[in-house]
Amino acid sequence: MTALDLPDDILHRVRTKTPLVQCITNFVAMDLAANLLLAVGASPAMIHAEEEAGEFAAIASALTVNIGTISADWVRGMQVAAATASRTGLPWVLDPVGCGATRWRTNVARELASMRPTLIRGNASEIIALAADRPATTRGVDASDPVEAAREAAGDLARRHGSCVAVTGEVDYLTDGTRQLLVAGGHAMMAKVTAMGCALTAVCGATLAVEQDPFMATAGALTCFKTAGSRAAAQAEGPGSLRWRMADELFRLEDESLKREARLELDA
Amino acid sequence: MTALDLPDDILHRVRTKTPLVQCITNFVAMDLAANLLLAVGASPAMIHAEEEAGEFAAIASALTVNIGTISADWVRGMQVAAATASRTGLPWVLDPVGCGATRWRTNVARELASMRPTLIRGNASEIIALAADRPATTRGVDASDPVEAAREAAGDLARRHGSCVAVTGEVDYLTDGTRQLLVAGGHAMMAKVTAMGCALTAVCGATLAVEQDPFMATAGALTCFKTAGSRAAAQAEGPGSLRWRMADELFRLEDESLKREARLELDA
Amino acid sequence: MTALDLPDDILHRVRTKTPLVQCITNFVAMDLAANLLLAVGASPAMIHAEEEAGEFAAIASALTVNIGTISADWVRGMQVAAATASRTGLPWVLDPVGCGATRWRTNVARELASMRPTLIRGNASEIIALAADRPATTRGVDASDPVEAAREAAGDLARRHGSCVAVTGEVDYLTDGTRQLLVAGGHAMMAKVTAMGCALTAVCGATLAVEQDPFMATAGALTCFKTAGSRAAAQAEGPGSLRWRMADELFRLEDESLKREARLELDA
Repeated sequence: MTALDLPDDILHRVRTKTPLVQCITNFVAMDLAANLLLAVGASPAMIHAEEEAGEFAAIASALTVNIGTISADWVRGMQVAAATASRTGLPWVLDPVGCGATRWRTNVARELASMRPTLIRGNASEIIALAADRPATTRGVDASDPVEAAREAAGDLARRHGSCVAVTGEVDYLTDGTRQLLVAGGHAMMAKVTAMGCALTAVCGATLAVEQDPFMATAGALTCFKTAGSRAAAQAEGPGSLRWRMADELFRLEDESLKREARLELDA
Repeated sequence: MTALDLPDDILHRVRTKTPLVQCITNFVAMDLAANLLLAVGASPAMIHAEEEAGEFAAIASALTVNIGTISADWVRGMQVAAATASRTGLPWVLDPVGCGATRWRTNVARELASMRPTLIRGNASEIIALAADRPATTRGVDASDPVEAAREAAGDLARRHGSCVAVTGEVDYLTDGTRQLLVAGGHAMMAKVTAMGCALTAVCGATLAVEQDPFMATAGALTCFKTAGSRAAAQAEGPGSLRWRMADELFRLEDESLKREARLELDA
Repeated sequence: MTALDLPDDILHRVRTKTPLVQCITNFVAMDLAANLLLAVGASPAMIHAEEEAGEFAAIASALTVNIGTISADWVRGMQVAAATASRTGLPWVLDPVGCGATRWRTNVARELASMRPTLIRGNASEIIALAADRPATTRGVDASDPVEAAREAAGDLARRHGSCVAVTGEVDYLTDGTRQLLVAGGHAMMAKVTAMGCALTAVCGATLAVEQDPFMATAGALTCFKTAGSRAAAQAEGPGSLRWRMADELFRLEDESLKREARLELDA
């Protein structure tokens, strides 16, 4: 294992370019995702209807697609936007929430994955279910598998779709099929705040918009979350205060301390 | 009136079993309901589409259905999930938000009630409108009737549908058609936080999943809310801080202090 | 420029009449809008389905329509409710979020504007796009144009539709086509909290319900937000704490200090 050097200025780039991140996300995550995007310096836009999702993707800086509370009409909007992103080279992220929980949801996730997202981010159970050839089962939207258990599935997905794949949990695992990275830090209480992973997906959209290498962009977003989460948890009295402190800490985070506090290990 | 003894370990049971609570709830309540479920130790899953709501109910530990921001497609998902719950014996809760406000909403609520929910939880106006034989009117989603005024309606509903019925307000009233319970505590400022009742409905799902007697399970959830609400309000500077303190206090609540601080009275 | 005297008792009136404000708003704003309405003393009701939106508007005290996360079915509900409001003289507010970003969205906003809302509230880019005769482009949902740039467009809209028009930003601009008002105050960090403008739209519904002159009613709501925002920002450590402090400060705000701290200038 060797250290990875984050870009010196990833937060600075987000704050000066204020990338417009189109989020087609779930109802639970809407508020947190938009607020954490604003806190990090990006500009969120929650636009999902098939009448406009593709047209808007053409002017966005990045797209994130999260299937948490899908219905058939939302899936159509996701497909339209993802098709535009794929065609125009717009970076886009797939968050396959609850993949494996039902057959329909699993199929929706797999079809979106086949549209070659720049990044797939999920918990271990979702990534395993997404990569599997057969019907799988998760337990709702919480990870019940450890991150390590999803390494092979992540590598398979990365190679199959040409995507980066991030499996997040106690220690995040990131791969692009060649490079592998572990990101430590954060705090167990972050799992007690709903939509924290969904909001991370949105923030990955912001860094992908300002950094050409998706592996480095995602490493930057994962590190922001781990660092801000550690700081927020150190002052929080419970998950309620952790939630708003996360926005405060992301807002105050600077590149210099981000690099200093990063706990990254490249796995050769 | 005599005291009621809560189960000694209701919170412990939720935290060790982490029941998977499927919530088909409204857009306003999504975030708070999921966060308070996590705070209490359960695992929320917001899955509503008719394509998967029934399949998911078959693997959930409990189901909660809240009609706050319904549209026709959401109602279909609710009916599919409730049908699965009724067929498989899964405990499920109906929250008839705004019942009485419009004819369509009142009919939707009454049809769902006829599917024999384990528990119906609402404010006095909603319970009165749900029990009535004729069209009724509430005033939006706030209770304008006092809890006492809904006692008879609650008893009628309980006997008609074989449900527990909880009428929440300054002092909550709970009945299963035979037993009657009053739960005091909490704070008036809780009514100034939106979706607090909806989130309580979700937490009832968590306790119903771990306690066989629905009357005792609901008594446990109501007591958790009153106790955490009192503690949160004691430190809050307004409804904004009360909201996040509610999550912190539910997270820190233990069975021992819950039993000690409970203000329950059985009405024979 | 001369000073404008706010009504002496606008908050008192909201708190004693607790107007029922029907909000057909976006998924991001649902929670904040409902909570800030409660904080200011009103009663929110988020009812959007075409099956009941019109029937409910007939019993509401005011209606607010916000197109942030529209889809075709939501637009139908908005049109039904706005038609009822126009027919019955119910005060109603249009918030044309993202107007100009896509052709469909721009058309939806212009059609709603033609239904003669009592008030139109947006950022400068949205107001300019709404008033224009030709297709326009905004940059997502954030204002990129300064408020001053939208003065002419606001005046045009006011005269065309018989509406008040509020352009909000660093200094808010309000006109009814004849009178013009500038409202200073607030804090730049408010723009880092999502849906703050959408929640202001909802609060405008509350003041329009209790004050006959829409210009004075809107001036009251804008001043509430600027004053509470200043106070909240003075104590906030970032946008996360600003968000909940906003509810606390609106809850504690009184007419006397509101009038004392107001920074209003009439432009003759």
